[in-house]
Amino acid sequence: MDLKRGKVELAHGGGGRAMAQLIDELFQQAFENPWLRQANDQALLTRPEGRIVMATDSHVVSPLFFPGGDIGSLSVHGTINDVATSGARPLWLSAGFILEEGFPLADLKRIVDSMAAAARAAGVPIVTGDTKVVERGKGDGVFINTTGVGVVPDGVEISGDRARPGDRILVSGFLGDHGVAIMSLRENLSFSTNIESDSAALHELIAAMVENAPDIHCLRDPTRGGLAATLNEIARQSGVGMTIREDDIPVREEVDAACELLGLDPLYVANEGKVVAVCPPESTERLLAAMRAHPLGRDAAIIGEVVADEHAFVQMETSFGGRRNVDWISGEQLPRIC
Amino acid sequence: MDLKRGKVELAHGGGGRAMAQLIDELFQQAFENPWLRQANDQALLTRPEGRIVMATDSHVVSPLFFPGGDIGSLSVHGTINDVATSGARPLWLSAGFILEEGFPLADLKRIVDSMAAAARAAGVPIVTGDTKVVERGKGDGVFINTTGVGVVPDGVEISGDRARPGDRILVSGFLGDHGVAIMSLRENLSFSTNIESDSAALHELIAAMVENAPDIHCLRDPTRGGLAATLNEIARQSGVGMTIREDDIPVREEVDAACELLGLDPLYVANEGKVVAVCPPESTERLLAAMRAHPLGRDAAIIGEVVADEHAFVQMETSFGGRRNVDWISGEQLPRIC
Repeated sequence: MDLKRGKVELAHGGGGRAMAQLIDELFQQAFENPWLRQANDQALLTRPEGRIVMATDSHVVSPLFFPGGDIGSLSVHGTINDVATSGARPLWLSAGFILEEGFPLADLKRIVDSMAAAARAAGVPIVTGDTKVVERGKGDGVFINTTGVGVVPDGVEISGDRARPGDRILVSGFLGDHGVAIMSLRENLSFSTNIESDSAALHELIAAMVENAPDIHCLRDPTRGGLAATLNEIARQSGVGMTIREDDIPVREEVDAACELLGLDPLYVANEGKVVAVCPPESTERLLAAMRAHPLGRDAAIIGEVVADEHAFVQMETSFGGRRNVDWISGEQLPRIC
Repeated sequence: MDLKRGKVELAHGGGGRAMAQLIDELFQQAFENPWLRQANDQALLTRPEGRIVMATDSHVVSPLFFPGGDIGSLSVHGTINDVATSGARPLWLSAGFILEEGFPLADLKRIVDSMAAAARAAGVPIVTGDTKVVERGKGDGVFINTTGVGVVPDGVEISGDRARPGDRILVSGFLGDHGVAIMSLRENLSFSTNIESDSAALHELIAAMVENAPDIHCLRDPTRGGLAATLNEIARQSGVGMTIREDDIPVREEVDAACELLGLDPLYVANEGKVVAVCPPESTERLLAAMRAHPLGRDAAIIGEVVADEHAFVQMETSFGGRRNVDWISGEQLPRIC
């Protein structure tokens, strides 16, 4: 198998020798762990201590490589974060690849190596996988599904329906970096070099948050649809309103400027390494301190409060002293951002 | 949302109101269960009693609808079977959809309803999910990843590396139905009406097998690459050879005839509702009886033996009294068969 100049062929998904070779020489070597080495159609793992959590995410980001990451690292971070925002410790990942015939094996290797590095850095192994190949023109290079399993310690109860009036709303850092990094690249904008995706695995930050404020009510990562979608989801699930303050929402100047150029609103732009937390007022300062003590939460901020509102509106006090509704986006702002 | 005449739009993957509507009105309604109703980015499940097993499978079958099933039911059966062939009881499934812009919502609903029916019939709920949309021409209607989690009871040790010389090899029924059903449809052959996919969830059959013969060494479902690939995989993993008898391998006459027309070998054709078992000689009759007592194992047969062979060759005694090597396929025999 020529990993330098070769291309994905339909045979790589055919269940025969070519597929076995791709698995052995690429996936097994990169992901290398005892579970994958079982080489069965499933991974046999241990008996976990706690309630199981399961999350799945398919990744179709375009372009595949971008400042701050690629579809490989993103697919590891995204699912780890979806598991971790339940308060769970992520334990295992699966990886399902859909490859397009003709895709360069060298690019696939780069992506797989990046996944492997991200999984290793996070301490969450990729224990089982699957590869399918579709004909040229029926896919787009590589799509990756990752599914994660973790365990929630007893006593931790975090869910989008637990926000209560009086709770504080926090974010772990600057918003909009991921979406703007991708869009700048796509639009070929000159400022693209300065803004990098924030793609990161948040499970250790979240573990520190839960340890210091075990009464956190909600955690969610503001990915597609950005902060606006996340707050509206939680408001709807909990049957509460929210008030946020524009001046307190951390957005980098470059991101603000890029958004203006691209016609985007940073509140709606995807993040891949940020978490939104809702917690009771008495725990807020402890939670904020725990977040700021972690490298991925250094720029954390309290951005607003939960209020009683049967319409579940999210409202923002603007920098100009006004007030506006932060609605869901109704259309597609940024296709294939993750 | 017009589920009768509408089409998938990029907005359905955008994280905004359109996506929320698709999830509420289609996925939630069809899959309906308390875990999905949590409506978080992950499902919080119970603490399981036993070792965890995880399996993943992306489905890209073409065409999407075929005699005996569709991509929806197939995606449920395929992953349940990959979990179950470890001897595990499948507990939960995740579902990740990659939709192509312009795909008819009515077809999507048909697929989702079929998934829901298959999951319900199997007693394995779809507890969490994800939806992505790619632009027209960057996908092919619908791709579905399902990932399954199950638990293996203590004492059960089933793996592809446990085959030993003297062990018997069994299959649960007629081979080649799925692959031939798909290929007949693709090639528009007149006999297409007679052959149906064998797509089925095998976990109950397998539970009965494990209960009656707890010392089963290997179980695997002969999907892509067919019986030939499965036997070669097990032979390689276990470092043993295998001898099978052509006359004892159950293949329907119509499938044999269709294979001749299509230039296929039934040994290499995919199955989606069959299992191959390797077990010690003393348990063979008990295992065979347990298989035949189950509707999905009615036509089970003993097809050969494991032999000592450092080259891990799979050999077949042919109907004509000869002997030939059953090698891996080296190329792609049947693209997008699952």
